[in-house]
Amino acid sequence: MPRTADKTDIPNRLTEAGYLLFTKHGYNATGIQQIADQAGVPKGSFYNHFDSKEAFAAAIIDRYTAWVGQAWDACMADAPGEPLAAIEHVFGRFIQHHADTHCQGCLVGNFAAEVSESSTLCRDVLRNSMRSWRDRLAGLIGQAQQRGQVRGDISALDLSTFFWDAWEGALLRMKIEHTTEPLRHTVRLVLNHFLRP
Amino acid sequence: MPRTADKTDIPNRLTEAGYLLFTKHGYNATGIQQIADQAGVPKGSFYNHFDSKEAFAAAIIDRYTAWVGQAWDACMADAPGEPLAAIEHVFGRFIQHHADTHCQGCLVGNFAAEVSESSTLCRDVLRNSMRSWRDRLAGLIGQAQQRGQVRGDISALDLSTFFWDAWEGALLRMKIEHTTEPLRHTVRLVLNHFLRP
Repeated sequence: MPRTADKTDIPNRLTEAGYLLFTKHGYNATGIQQIADQAGVPKGSFYNHFDSKEAFAAAIIDRYTAWVGQAWDACMADAPGEPLAAIEHVFGRFIQHHADTHCQGCLVGNFAAEVSESSTLCRDVLRNSMRSWRDRLAGLIGQAQQRGQVRGDISALDLSTFFWDAWEGALLRMKIEHTTEPLRHTVRLVLNHFLRP
Repeated sequence: MPRTADKTDIPNRLTEAGYLLFTKHGYNATGIQQIADQAGVPKGSFYNHFDSKEAFAAAIIDRYTAWVGQAWDACMADAPGEPLAAIEHVFGRFIQHHADTHCQGCLVGNFAAEVSESSTLCRDVLRNSMRSWRDRLAGLIGQAQQRGQVRGDISALDLSTFFWDAWEGALLRMKIEHTTEPLRHTVRLVLNHFLRP
């Protein structure tokens, strides 16, 4: 996520710090004190802005989702007009992001594994986050179907849901193998083979 | 995992307790005291048998992998002889297991998300675990290719690797949506569509 330029914006500094620490160490291994230290604010400030660690995590998932949406917009701005090529372009950028951030993975996937059992609030926010990405991808797949570039025997939403699940699984393997090869493998098989008519 | 009948077998009681707690709450949210309490043994016993929580987790991943292998053997014992039908049978049983255990997910996938960044030891064991399943599935896919039931333009190992990644991603979505529908969706699309010649 981009850093805030406004040093007086305590909630933003906390969510940025939380995002970095949660992505690197996970939810349970990260304490409020550590988040406050990373943000450079007193620990007491945390509870002026967030009711609980759980509510804070939910706010970060929301922010991360919005940030991925903005990154997706930016990718689309210089993507090829043809929808299948646009999907390949967008996922190519996502893969580059994961290489640049040393294969730490996707906050939503990591939290799905770690906190969806213990937090109904986070689970709801995670569900909305995944649905928003899946719907957006389904839109592009639907356009590609209309052009005859993608098989028409499975709905765009079913294909998109499958693609996103496979992507999240590849992100897990990326974390284990510490290489983006699983991401490239998944995108290559889906786009070059499984989506084809 | 099956419970040990031998109450004096402290290491087994600890690993069974650890498996249950790690699967439900995750690695970092589970303490040694909690594991000892669940196992019904004094906390001091833990360090008589395991050097660290990390080494304990690695031992549990190994045991879980062996247990999945045994469950797979048991499924194959009453599976149809035809390889594609056998794959469907095995995954059907896996899906039933996840329904029976209330969608808590796969220990290997959960740990991949939570501890692969912080523990090289666990990451190595997780990698071996995933590879063993992927190789076993590749064997069945290869047999199905020889019978012309599965496409031959992608190697059995590449198909198996992809299938397993998609499965782990579907397990994450299962945890978020609290239903095994993502598992059924993934297996259905892979077996009925994407693997087909």
